[in-house]
Amino acid sequence: MSTIYSYRQLYNFSKTIFLKIGCDEKDAETATRSLLSADLRGVDSHGVARLSGYIRLWDAGRVNAKPAITIMHETPSTAVINGDRGLGLVVAPFAMQVAIEKAGAVGTGWVSVKNSNHFGIAGHHAMMALEHDMIGIAMTNASALVAPTFSKERMLGTNPIAVAIPAGKQPAFVADFATTTAANGKLEILQRKNETMPAGWALTKDGEPSTDPGEIKNGGSLLPLGGDKEHGSHKGYALGAIVDIFSGILSGASYGPWVPPFPAYIPMPENMPGEGIGHFFGVMRIDAFRKADEFKEHMDNWINRFRTAKTIAGQEKVIIPGDPEREIEARRMKNGIPLLGAVVKDLTELGERFKTAL
Amino acid sequence: MSTIYSYRQLYNFSKTIFLKIGCDEKDAETATRSLLSADLRGVDSHGVARLSGYIRLWDAGRVNAKPAITIMHETPSTAVINGDRGLGLVVAPFAMQVAIEKAGAVGTGWVSVKNSNHFGIAGHHAMMALEHDMIGIAMTNASALVAPTFSKERMLGTNPIAVAIPAGKQPAFVADFATTTAANGKLEILQRKNETMPAGWALTKDGEPSTDPGEIKNGGSLLPLGGDKEHGSHKGYALGAIVDIFSGILSGASYGPWVPPFPAYIPMPENMPGEGIGHFFGVMRIDAFRKADEFKEHMDNWINRFRTAKTIAGQEKVIIPGDPEREIEARRMKNGIPLLGAVVKDLTELGERFKTAL
Repeated sequence: MSTIYSYRQLYNFSKTIFLKIGCDEKDAETATRSLLSADLRGVDSHGVARLSGYIRLWDAGRVNAKPAITIMHETPSTAVINGDRGLGLVVAPFAMQVAIEKAGAVGTGWVSVKNSNHFGIAGHHAMMALEHDMIGIAMTNASALVAPTFSKERMLGTNPIAVAIPAGKQPAFVADFATTTAANGKLEILQRKNETMPAGWALTKDGEPSTDPGEIKNGGSLLPLGGDKEHGSHKGYALGAIVDIFSGILSGASYGPWVPPFPAYIPMPENMPGEGIGHFFGVMRIDAFRKADEFKEHMDNWINRFRTAKTIAGQEKVIIPGDPEREIEARRMKNGIPLLGAVVKDLTELGERFKTAL
Repeated sequence: MSTIYSYRQLYNFSKTIFLKIGCDEKDAETATRSLLSADLRGVDSHGVARLSGYIRLWDAGRVNAKPAITIMHETPSTAVINGDRGLGLVVAPFAMQVAIEKAGAVGTGWVSVKNSNHFGIAGHHAMMALEHDMIGIAMTNASALVAPTFSKERMLGTNPIAVAIPAGKQPAFVADFATTTAANGKLEILQRKNETMPAGWALTKDGEPSTDPGEIKNGGSLLPLGGDKEHGSHKGYALGAIVDIFSGILSGASYGPWVPPFPAYIPMPENMPGEGIGHFFGVMRIDAFRKADEFKEHMDNWINRFRTAKTIAGQEKVIIPGDPEREIEARRMKNGIPLLGAVVKDLTELGERFKTAL
């Protein structure tokens, strides 16, 4: 079913493809690291499986391989960045670097980005702050798939939020999650296996509850975290809305139902109120609040206490956000990354087009 | 069942009580406004019904009516504040004011607070930013009632998050929610009515699912937003954890299972790793990103579009976060605030003790 590739193999292949579409050396490396961080961390839907999708956006003229990423407006702790239709995989690390420098200077940095594209996994960007003893925050809007509470219309993307917090002897706390009950990728997996979907994940296009994982393909909608009103879906809807507003409206990107789609064959929304996809990044320097060593000792204490919390029947331990992804990364860096047959076929065709072997 | 009181009546009564325990004039007014904002906005569990609870904390020596609230450490965009065991109802507005001033100077302000007490509703504090054309964020940790995913142990509070975002012709977007599936107050209401609770709200003390709204009183736990792993409870758990870390560990407050309880009869946790309850506040000046007028026009467009999204059967409209609370506030400011018999009795006794009539 799947073939194992080393990180190095996928790195060289992806970097070559990015170079072939015209990225410069540094951008090709940055884009490759952003993209493959998803494969390493087990988020297979957002990694190299999407490489040909990014290239189709470039084919369609929606991605600029040589963007002039610029700061449009700034204050000591903020900036708005124009991504110039660049790959989000490149624009996002640029913006995080600006936020890190501002945090170094005045304690925190907050950067809203317009005119970008999909940036891969949010957690990768948030984690850039960790080595500086800073907290990193990353979020992005995305094309609409999610119906607000009481609605059956796709109005918001899965709008993920990532927060990375350094610890001392313990590994960092890294939360990275879509503001929906379940990610779209999970529906696709169930559909491939011909299985049903739990109630509370999605609605039919007419707004009825459903357990058919094919609903999204049929025009249905994903549900916000919480699922239904009784279980707090208005909170998941509010979270997704906040991500949309911070990413889209603060920056001048598009927002809500007007966010450009990832699949290049879907036409662009009409009457877009802004430019491209929007992201939002935040960085807080720990010692702008208290001594970093003290903070990290307490983070270790927090993590140790939560790891040893009493479990419900059938569960061995309580998980600290970031634990599973870190374990997968260590394993895949050592043993390689498994790719499904369909992904290998897709990448092989891409390689043939650009005359490079996988 | 309930008696109607005007805002003015409850204001004068509450202010008098705060003066009687030794608050100065300004703090008594600030505390009263913070407290009664909950009654006005329909969050009856967090308003004047809790006044006698705050006084019992003062009786127990856990609340300092004359706090010397001080900035312990700061950078241009950050501060850590020591609340000196003051009422959170007073400490929180002080901290928000610091954040607003920093945002005025360098674009954003971020303030973590230790050694405080319960601060009422988060939304009231977040909304302080609105009149300055700023976005306000408020969160707080609280004593542990919530079990992380896979756990049956109370490790986190209901840890609410509020975000207030200004609009133009439309009213502001104001989200204010606990990071749990349902608030504890909802369980209490069902218990009084002798009704069952939906699955996915709480566990028994042994970690089994339950529909008995008395579980919390029996030592059970609330569930994080999402309810169970299948519906994304690890995301609600991560959100509650982030609130705890930003509020508790950045500031030097207590955190996790060691956060001091609100009911004065419950003993303080042993071996607390920090001082008191922690809060976290953020303020972002809109024009640190883009012109405030432009931003507000797009917020109006966002709100109009979401308000007119297609609804599911049986629902008239999609709600914008803050709509219901604003409507209740307008009604209660005009027609008065209904208090349940038990609350009136409690306040009457409090008035007798302090020789002031309700």
